[in-house]
Amino acid sequence: MMIHVRTKIQRPDKEIVEAFKGYASATIHEASGRKGYISARIKPIASGIKVCGPAFTVQCPAGDNMMLHKALELAQPGDVIVATVGGAEEYGYWGDLMSVSAVARKLGGLCIEGCIRDKEDIAELGFPVFSTGLCIRGTGKGTLGLINYITVFGGQSIQPGDLIVGDDDGLVLVRREDCAEVLQKTMSRVNAEVIKAKALSTGISSVEYNNLGPKFVEAGLVEE
Amino acid sequence: MMIHVRTKIQRPDKEIVEAFKGYASATIHEASGRKGYISARIKPIASGIKVCGPAFTVQCPAGDNMMLHKALELAQPGDVIVATVGGAEEYGYWGDLMSVSAVARKLGGLCIEGCIRDKEDIAELGFPVFSTGLCIRGTGKGTLGLINYITVFGGQSIQPGDLIVGDDDGLVLVRREDCAEVLQKTMSRVNAEVIKAKALSTGISSVEYNNLGPKFVEAGLVEE
Amino acid sequence: MMIHVRTKIQRPDKEIVEAFKGYASATIHEASGRKGYISARIKPIASGIKVCGPAFTVQCPAGDNMMLHKALELAQPGDVIVATVGGAEEYGYWGDLMSVSAVARKLGGLCIEGCIRDKEDIAELGFPVFSTGLCIRGTGKGTLGLINYITVFGGQSIQPGDLIVGDDDGLVLVRREDCAEVLQKTMSRVNAEVIKAKALSTGISSVEYNNLGPKFVEAGLVEE
Amino acid sequence: MMIHVRTKIQRPDKEIVEAFKGYASATIHEASGRKGYISARIKPIASGIKVCGPAFTVQCPAGDNMMLHKALELAQPGDVIVATVGGAEEYGYWGDLMSVSAVARKLGGLCIEGCIRDKEDIAELGFPVFSTGLCIRGTGKGTLGLINYITVFGGQSIQPGDLIVGDDDGLVLVRREDCAEVLQKTMSRVNAEVIKAKALSTGISSVEYNNLGPKFVEAGLVEE
Amino acid sequence: MMIHVRTKIQRPDKEIVEAFKGYASATIHEASGRKGYISARIKPIASGIKVCGPAFTVQCPAGDNMMLHKALELAQPGDVIVATVGGAEEYGYWGDLMSVSAVARKLGGLCIEGCIRDKEDIAELGFPVFSTGLCIRGTGKGTLGLINYITVFGGQSIQPGDLIVGDDDGLVLVRREDCAEVLQKTMSRVNAEVIKAKALSTGISSVEYNNLGPKFVEAGLVEE
Amino acid sequence: MMIHVRTKIQRPDKEIVEAFKGYASATIHEASGRKGYISARIKPIASGIKVCGPAFTVQCPAGDNMMLHKALELAQPGDVIVATVGGAEEYGYWGDLMSVSAVARKLGGLCIEGCIRDKEDIAELGFPVFSTGLCIRGTGKGTLGLINYITVFGGQSIQPGDLIVGDDDGLVLVRREDCAEVLQKTMSRVNAEVIKAKALSTGISSVEYNNLGPKFVEAGLVEE
Repeated sequence: MMIHVRTKIQRPDKEIVEAFKGYASATIHEASGRKGYISARIKPIASGIKVCGPAFTVQCPAGDNMMLHKALELAQPGDVIVATVGGAEEYGYWGDLMSVSAVARKLGGLCIEGCIRDKEDIAELGFPVFSTGLCIRGTGKGTLGLINYITVFGGQSIQPGDLIVGDDDGLVLVRREDCAEVLQKTMSRVNAEVIKAKALSTGISSVEYNNLGPKFVEAGLVEE
Repeated sequence: MMIHVRTKIQRPDKEIVEAFKGYASATIHEASGRKGYISARIKPIASGIKVCGPAFTVQCPAGDNMMLHKALELAQPGDVIVATVGGAEEYGYWGDLMSVSAVARKLGGLCIEGCIRDKEDIAELGFPVFSTGLCIRGTGKGTLGLINYITVFGGQSIQPGDLIVGDDDGLVLVRREDCAEVLQKTMSRVNAEVIKAKALSTGISSVEYNNLGPKFVEAGLVEE
Repeated sequence: MMIHVRTKIQRPDKEIVEAFKGYASATIHEASGRKGYISARIKPIASGIKVCGPAFTVQCPAGDNMMLHKALELAQPGDVIVATVGGAEEYGYWGDLMSVSAVARKLGGLCIEGCIRDKEDIAELGFPVFSTGLCIRGTGKGTLGLINYITVFGGQSIQPGDLIVGDDDGLVLVRREDCAEVLQKTMSRVNAEVIKAKALSTGISSVEYNNLGPKFVEAGLVEE
Repeated sequence: MMIHVRTKIQRPDKEIVEAFKGYASATIHEASGRKGYISARIKPIASGIKVCGPAFTVQCPAGDNMMLHKALELAQPGDVIVATVGGAEEYGYWGDLMSVSAVARKLGGLCIEGCIRDKEDIAELGFPVFSTGLCIRGTGKGTLGLINYITVFGGQSIQPGDLIVGDDDGLVLVRREDCAEVLQKTMSRVNAEVIKAKALSTGISSVEYNNLGPKFVEAGLVEE
Repeated sequence: MMIHVRTKIQRPDKEIVEAFKGYASATIHEASGRKGYISARIKPIASGIKVCGPAFTVQCPAGDNMMLHKALELAQPGDVIVATVGGAEEYGYWGDLMSVSAVARKLGGLCIEGCIRDKEDIAELGFPVFSTGLCIRGTGKGTLGLINYITVFGGQSIQPGDLIVGDDDGLVLVRREDCAEVLQKTMSRVNAEVIKAKALSTGISSVEYNNLGPKFVEAGLVEE
Repeated sequence: MMIHVRTKIQRPDKEIVEAFKGYASATIHEASGRKGYISARIKPIASGIKVCGPAFTVQCPAGDNMMLHKALELAQPGDVIVATVGGAEEYGYWGDLMSVSAVARKLGGLCIEGCIRDKEDIAELGFPVFSTGLCIRGTGKGTLGLINYITVFGGQSIQPGDLIVGDDDGLVLVRREDCAEVLQKTMSRVNAEVIKAKALSTGISSVEYNNLGPKFVEAGLVEE
């Protein structure tokens, strides 16, 4: 028997999720050893929006948002709904009323590889949404999909409960089991970057500061 | 003999056009029974721009904006120029001077399945423009097209005089003969949505509120 | 022997570069006889950003930003780094630290036919960047490219030292040897446009003002 | 516990599957009331290739073909592996050796919304493959996906065991429970088409033969 | 009153149309002074197919082929139906039965900026079709378009009666009034190319044969 | 001084180039440790065409093929011209006459990240061409580019003299200094594949033959 909806998923510790807030997705990506890159096509619906929380994964059928309503019912406070639509992006899978509900139920956000609508109202509500675009076209409600199964989102295999973090630059994934280590490395990296920024602001070249000279020699660079 | 320019077109009543202002394109689309969707590729040139008025349709040749000048001459106050360019989008078919003229002549806006230029000046003038992008590349003036014929715009067949309404989410079309009915339904829908938003803001799930349970049963959903 | 990096390039006079600041890219494009159009896919990372300076051209390998560090070391104050990445756009070739360095070294900006990251920090720093998008994905440092060779950027062949100017509408190129003449024509055009805008704001049609009537007759226009 | 691989699926009767062979995908699509259209981007790797069999659905991670090997192990003779790759199409997910194995195990074919490689050898083996392209880039083996769950393939929600039929025109889906009815209608349609083709070959216009005149009148057609 | 269908169009002389057959589209394009290029996205449905005849232009609504049936009724022997679909390409606008009819009525071919279906049967019938792809998805019959108006097809403004010629390389347009002159130039060019090919087959370089040396000097070429 | 054309490049030994002929691009790619993948967008102009030879790299300006004539003059027998066009692909950069010349001068082939024309004549001549498409649009002759510099082609940095090999599946690059080693590994791989194919043709599953079981266990696969 095919089980469409899995309800029991493991999530990272809440303190760790909290601690990730405020770090940039690009920094986390670098700190994790350049893992977890999610396609830059999935962007915040307005500049300045940020998201951070465990992934509650949803596979929608093309042009049908029934499973997103199911997700709204089952996701826990702080969860980020991570939804795919099988490439049929040009529909408004999510709107203002669903956002009202999501805010009331304290969800952490929505990241969808497809379009949404009611951008203005959603931005006003302050519910964080990342999507591939805006589209008013209405969806049906009648075909099933899957909830909380492994899914490929923006080119990354995502397990339910993995951490997803995003800002203007886009989204990054941190595997649940790697969260603690990546957090540590992210904090270290930020400290190092502050020192580096200070040095570079004096005008020293990055080639000199990072000692890239030997790399250029090794690669055989010839300057005129 | 081919007639390139038709000047006599029927428009919806002015009060009806006025009444549509302020309603969201997504709401109108839903209220009309999910009709009139225009491709989301055609977007406002800046966030917050709205448009609402009868379509004055123009078919431009690729890379030539002569017919848009003719449209500027013939369109009536409130009219929205709805222009196609045969897929040759990467030209600046419209700019600041044409916008100055359009404002002086009290046009309702421009919706073009192609690019425009002088975004900053146009935004400052307050003339509403929806386009597929910005592009400085200059156009010629020497090839004819058609004005006020049926045309396919953003995947919709548009008759001159049909109503076009848009906001951040994109554009929607209402057939001239359906305007009164769709307006009625839009107003009803907005009222219903206010009530629904209030309910959902209490935290009740949309599955429960919309009684989606039987739909899931019918589709055979299995939850773990 | 292949020389990867050319350091001696000719630039337009500084006064001329300064004089171009404040003119719109669309106006310069028209004034130069519709030359120098650079693909509209390369856009400012935030609305309102402008760039103007001599091109310091860089060819990066796909997914490697080593040559951009070399460019940061060698470019002179005011130079605009103009970079291509062989079509492999979905990487973050440039970020906040490089921007700190670029500001410290007084560079004029970066125009890249590829993606960058750390948009928020860069916008705050005030360093002007034009790119085809944002992307957090990290780059390597180990493969060589070319600096200050002729390159095709946004569909234009650019010589190092050519002038590049951009705003919300996009980028335009002015060949180094044409700068003085194009500047002259740009200033004339702006004056003419002010007069024209004044006339059009009275409500006169552009067909009448520009005397387009004979053009329509010549093309055989038939109005109903 | 997440179950990645479901092994027990229901299939249409073998005689029905056999009976569908030889019918064109376009005809089946029309006969079923224009249902089951699968995106035309998924094409046979060479002209003339046909496929017909129950879908054995596979969700691959991006750039990893481990689950296709699992599918090769578990699929039954006649089954058509229907695979998605989360949009990361540019990899060679399938090749000559897997085709040798598929032939030995009597599989019905492969339909993948992604690329494959070794086209020449596969065509020679006579194993029917539909893909979105060819690509030599190697895949990894280390990340899990799902087998025999509902999946969105070419814009259609496919249940394991649904029938998939394809030819040069592309693929069509027939739901398992609709197979008998659609088969009946397909046969009727083919008979009707033979008669219609005979009539049209005499030179009678399709407007006259299909009595489209009233449709044009109703739509308000004006001929000059 | 909007006239949807114009029936009286002028065509080039039959002998001239005949004379163009056998010349390559690339050669005609060059001979005409590099005019008439039609987007290479519109290709023959099978290798080796050629088309040559006066354009009978049709604007279809998105997803509706009613006007193509009207065109089938009205086009004259030898006419090439040139159809656009407003960018909604992924439908099967034309199929085998329409091709049977077109053959019976001796039409010259179909060129459509959209998809068709029943490729195998059409190729067997020998009716020449150029399209942007194959797609089984069915179309409706209920919305009007325009016949024999100026239209933008593959980026070219086409007047009904202009000549359209195509082969594996793609399509080219020759304006009706230019046909005689372009034919003359095409024949001259072919003669010149035969002589040139003979010379180049001896091994002489094209730089030497075409005397490109001064061009390189003028452009400032530096060889090492 | 900018040197546009470098004439002295190193090539792999002729025997090694000869030895690579007959091996499939996918096999070489795997044998080299999954290096050298060139974008699958660059395909043979007809099925069955193969290419193998040292790269003679050319950077063309957009819409200008002057540098290809220079390449024709300077390339040595067996060389494969590898050309980029700065993304402006929709021009016919190469045609029949240039192919006549290339055959006379015994070149090894052309690989271009852009379009060519005269497909039929070129196929008949037997000159191997890989391109991103066909297009009749004529090019100019007046702007310089670079010859035999490092260039990014299909997402790979190519040095002049690197080996390029291609077939229906697409192109692969082997660095000049790696040729001997990769040839050795390719031959070994082919031998291993023959044995493997024989085994798989008996019906043994690839999971069993390749002992993938432990991989699935390690990844945590759950079968129902």
